[in-house]
Amino acid sequence: MAENNSSEVGVFDNYMISDSKFNIAVAQSGGPTAAINATLAGVFRAASACPQIDRVYGSINGIEGMIGGELAPLDSILTSEEDIELLKKTPSTVLGSCRYKLAEYDPNDSVTESEYMNILNTFEEYGIKAFFYIGGNDSMDTVMKLDRYCKAVGRDVKIIGIPKTIDNDLPCTDHTPGFGSAAKYVATTLQEIIRDSRVYSIQSITIVEIMGRNAGWLTASSSVLRVNGEPAPHLIYVPEAFPDGFDMEHFLDDVAHMMKRYRAVIIAVSEGIVPTDRQYVKTGADAFGHTDNSGVAKYLERRCSERFGCKVRSIELNVMQRCSSHIASLTDINESESIGAEAVKCAVSGCSGRMMTFRRISSEPYRIEITSVDVSEAANKEKFFPAGWICDNKCDITPDALNYFLPLIRGEAMPEFRNGIPVHFRLNQ
Amino acid sequence: MAENNSSEVGVFDNYMISDSKFNIAVAQSGGPTAAINATLAGVFRAASACPQIDRVYGSINGIEGMIGGELAPLDSILTSEEDIELLKKTPSTVLGSCRYKLAEYDPNDSVTESEYMNILNTFEEYGIKAFFYIGGNDSMDTVMKLDRYCKAVGRDVKIIGIPKTIDNDLPCTDHTPGFGSAAKYVATTLQEIIRDSRVYSIQSITIVEIMGRNAGWLTASSSVLRVNGEPAPHLIYVPEAFPDGFDMEHFLDDVAHMMKRYRAVIIAVSEGIVPTDRQYVKTGADAFGHTDNSGVAKYLERRCSERFGCKVRSIELNVMQRCSSHIASLTDINESESIGAEAVKCAVSGCSGRMMTFRRISSEPYRIEITSVDVSEAANKEKFFPAGWICDNKCDITPDALNYFLPLIRGEAMPEFRNGIPVHFRLNQ
Repeated sequence: MAENNSSEVGVFDNYMISDSKFNIAVAQSGGPTAAINATLAGVFRAASACPQIDRVYGSINGIEGMIGGELAPLDSILTSEEDIELLKKTPSTVLGSCRYKLAEYDPNDSVTESEYMNILNTFEEYGIKAFFYIGGNDSMDTVMKLDRYCKAVGRDVKIIGIPKTIDNDLPCTDHTPGFGSAAKYVATTLQEIIRDSRVYSIQSITIVEIMGRNAGWLTASSSVLRVNGEPAPHLIYVPEAFPDGFDMEHFLDDVAHMMKRYRAVIIAVSEGIVPTDRQYVKTGADAFGHTDNSGVAKYLERRCSERFGCKVRSIELNVMQRCSSHIASLTDINESESIGAEAVKCAVSGCSGRMMTFRRISSEPYRIEITSVDVSEAANKEKFFPAGWICDNKCDITPDALNYFLPLIRGEAMPEFRNGIPVHFRLNQ
Repeated sequence: MAENNSSEVGVFDNYMISDSKFNIAVAQSGGPTAAINATLAGVFRAASACPQIDRVYGSINGIEGMIGGELAPLDSILTSEEDIELLKKTPSTVLGSCRYKLAEYDPNDSVTESEYMNILNTFEEYGIKAFFYIGGNDSMDTVMKLDRYCKAVGRDVKIIGIPKTIDNDLPCTDHTPGFGSAAKYVATTLQEIIRDSRVYSIQSITIVEIMGRNAGWLTASSSVLRVNGEPAPHLIYVPEAFPDGFDMEHFLDDVAHMMKRYRAVIIAVSEGIVPTDRQYVKTGADAFGHTDNSGVAKYLERRCSERFGCKVRSIELNVMQRCSSHIASLTDINESESIGAEAVKCAVSGCSGRMMTFRRISSEPYRIEITSVDVSEAANKEKFFPAGWICDNKCDITPDALNYFLPLIRGEAMPEFRNGIPVHFRLNQ
């Protein structure tokens, strides 16, 4: 069967996979986001609308469910439009997730051999002709390996990757589903922290740690507050700015400089920033004898306290930044659903071994199209925050980045509330 | 002028303060909340509607502004209904705050003498005949002292306290403005953390630290999730349950018990919990040699890691729980405005030295009335979470408490958004 490299199929008029009805499976992988269930909803809705697709199975805990044969019949679980709408606004992965990395297929290694065989058996047992894997870099590696294996053994199952990560670090796509909602949470929460930090008539420093070990996209996105006239955060540090290490003296000079201008200095810092004088990160004692299993913000807090003696506070946005559906971006939720739907069309049109992508046509007005690339172009690769959007002083983001970020956080995907609390869709309750 | 002990004045038909027009001042004190600006809006709106009141001044940084004569003319700042609506949904204190404790008046102490004289001068200079202080226990102490002083020196300025604290620990009032919004944030965020914690097929423990040094109201309020069928948090620890100390072995037994029932155990803990084996809280090294300036959740995380060896995560909700206007309770915001308005009526009717209060008439349907008490009944006193609402096992809250909590978190005070970010009212920009 020929590969069709275009996924831009608008209608299900071209059933290349099979002449008879078939089933599909979908799984979620990696860290939670506020939008990964919206992508699941997109896959489910598109599959339900496709006359060739019969049943839709959800694999429990990512690829682990495919290996262990643990699948949930989604058509028996998502029984109404209300269920699907609720699912779209439920954070984290309703099917569970995993960090499982599929080994490269090796017929001489009985363990990997049996893993792949188990997956094939699950395909066979459940009549699955297409498998959709929603995840990040590692998950795209799984998509790539599984697609190669299916092709090698002549098994016609379409394997499609759908991107997902708040880190926004997948290549080939303008941005990743889940990023916009995380960025909206970060901007909203940072602005509230800024208000909170300014109440007293004393000098203070507030350091906010934001997720992103290697890529600073989410931290950099905090600069969107400028568009509404908010000068803070006054200092923004992304890992990409410090290929030669994060110098503490330079940092303390930056802070001292801002303290002359602002009574309450606000600093946004990527969790991936590693101060050069911090010898034992997150284990053992650092150069100053501190026992330390905390994040970089707590470390910078101590150093600022020692240097400036003023009120210093560190705040970790922690898992809240990846699962705060109550302040999700409507743009993100809708796009996440659409890319799931397009993935189904991509598979039905005969593609396999592809990762779905967003291509930005314009920022103002904001327009994107959904396409796909060979998954090998994205698997195990990272897309870093552009050097051109980092100011020369290494502690701020250029205004150019705003045009990129702003469309992604627009619109509010308000949850449904019951008893004053957002309602979540739950699989087993 | 006679004191009128009832503040339930519905109309401005009884101008007892003065026959000519006069000015008022209002100040905000203590820790920020999502609702303290709504109370300011209530004072401003009611004063603007009162024919006897001319100008409304905002004292900058609480009582410090009255001592230093730093007042902002609010009628020049809040110039439209849009401004006031924006103010209501802006977190933290737009006028700034303070932790300043007014000393008892002592004519033989030149420092306190001059402080009180400065306040009188500010009253005189700005033609202020009523002063409204929005704050917690300490602020009510200031109200009490200032009222006594004015009466002692025969100065006819009405001094009224308006409660505010996310801790909900002020006596004489059913609840405090700001608490409902904090509780709504805690419930919403905890539920998202619960979703996030369950994604992997491994045993895990998540410990969430919630504000409240002596009073466990906010931590206890996390039990509201039960009403929507969510069993977590599985363990809830409030300081009031441990008058004889928080025993670590007992805690670890509680956790072990829950680990048998739940793969992802969720624990809500008040910041005020002090484990008995933690000898040097927040300073120096603890009994286990850890250098430690972190909160109780981080300490419990380490102890659980040592005991159980599974994935353990601690999360501090930090300042976000007191300033998250984007998920504020509509009930709280509206009540906070109303109690500000009633405070104006209370002063105009001739009262002074009063703290405004909520009296709950019924929970279902929820009905309250706004009254007032002599401020000495509330100043410097704390209201603790009732022992009768703590389960015998000391690690859970009884269902009875739900009827108390639920009405306070109902309704959503959605902010206005611009560029995908909530719009805040800002005084100096």
